[in-house]
Amino acid sequence: MIFSSKLIEEAVQEFSRLPGIGKKTALRLVLQLLKTDKEDVDAFTGAVSRMRHEIEFCEECHNVSDGPKCVICANPGRNRSQVCVVETLRDVIAIESTQQYSGLYHILGGILSPLDGIGPDQLNISSLCKRVKENGVTELIMALSPTIEGDTTVYYIAKQLTGTDVNITTIARGIAFGGELEYADEMTLARSIAKRLPIDNYVTMQGK
Amino acid sequence: MIFSSKLIEEAVQEFSRLPGIGKKTALRLVLQLLKTDKEDVDAFTGAVSRMRHEIEFCEECHNVSDGPKCVICANPGRNRSQVCVVETLRDVIAIESTQQYSGLYHILGGILSPLDGIGPDQLNISSLCKRVKENGVTELIMALSPTIEGDTTVYYIAKQLTGTDVNITTIARGIAFGGELEYADEMTLARSIAKRLPIDNYVTMQGK
Repeated sequence: MIFSSKLIEEAVQEFSRLPGIGKKTALRLVLQLLKTDKEDVDAFTGAVSRMRHEIEFCEECHNVSDGPKCVICANPGRNRSQVCVVETLRDVIAIESTQQYSGLYHILGGILSPLDGIGPDQLNISSLCKRVKENGVTELIMALSPTIEGDTTVYYIAKQLTGTDVNITTIARGIAFGGELEYADEMTLARSIAKRLPIDNYVTMQGK
Repeated sequence: MIFSSKLIEEAVQEFSRLPGIGKKTALRLVLQLLKTDKEDVDAFTGAVSRMRHEIEFCEECHNVSDGPKCVICANPGRNRSQVCVVETLRDVIAIESTQQYSGLYHILGGILSPLDGIGPDQLNISSLCKRVKENGVTELIMALSPTIEGDTTVYYIAKQLTGTDVNITTIARGIAFGGELEYADEMTLARSIAKRLPIDNYVTMQGK
């Protein structure tokens, strides 16, 4: 693409560095911003800049935060004995959006993956063990990827916590609501048969 | 979506104001910027802010420009007697990218559309007429939308220029190269038969 303005070209280049944004989309966004009021463009760049410079990470659960403690950890109404272990911030947003979970979180920052050079020291595992031992956590809910790496991470953490009386659970895997049996992968279908639920349990879950 | 940080929430909100970017995409972009070095985020916001605040519009052709005259109008190698009339900057970029046109441009800023309240005074038509009369323009190439509004705009401009000896042409419409006859719309197909070309003319065009 040939631009007649260096300013436009630079802005398009910066936008197209973002994931999933090609040159054409970047140009569309830049031309839109060109039509937008200067104040609104300043609000846009200001919000992005502030987000990057002022964001902190919660010293307890490693969630993004506007101060030293995130709003979830700082909320006295949350159940402090339950901790849900997730990989990333995105998982916290997904679970929070269900409005069904009232405990705390712990963001690992990924899962064990030796081939990618990610060992226990690259993840927030030691701080998790410290939390469990010192803060009276009674249940750890593992909400990690259903992959070999995810399972390995669960077992590694469980091993680190032998000797403590914390109860380690994992979120239920199975056929999604509205999912068709015929399109489910074999692994999921096999597990959902092996871990079948008594029918009154199922009815309670639907009613909830 | 429920965010645990106001900073993240505001950045996501600003991104999702852009066209074609929903909440989920905005979150993806924000989380990517959160992982990016602070200097690179500053380069991003700086480029966007500079683009909006420092951009000027060429006093001759209304193209975006880094100074009072755009690089196309300022280029002494361009053919100053040919002016291609387009609706928006996007059209200039598309035509420039073919690298086949060496004349100048004139950006109207849209086409006549009385129902949307766009009359001749909302477009850069008077400055176009002035250019034609004062700058020795011999050919106006109309590259507007092939719609009723586009045709109306062409006729309006042609009427304004009666009395001058400028030659007004319009870009060729027809079946695109690689296009299938069976999928062409009736209007295009009908016109491309009516405006058929002698075969040696066609061969020359392909060879060019």
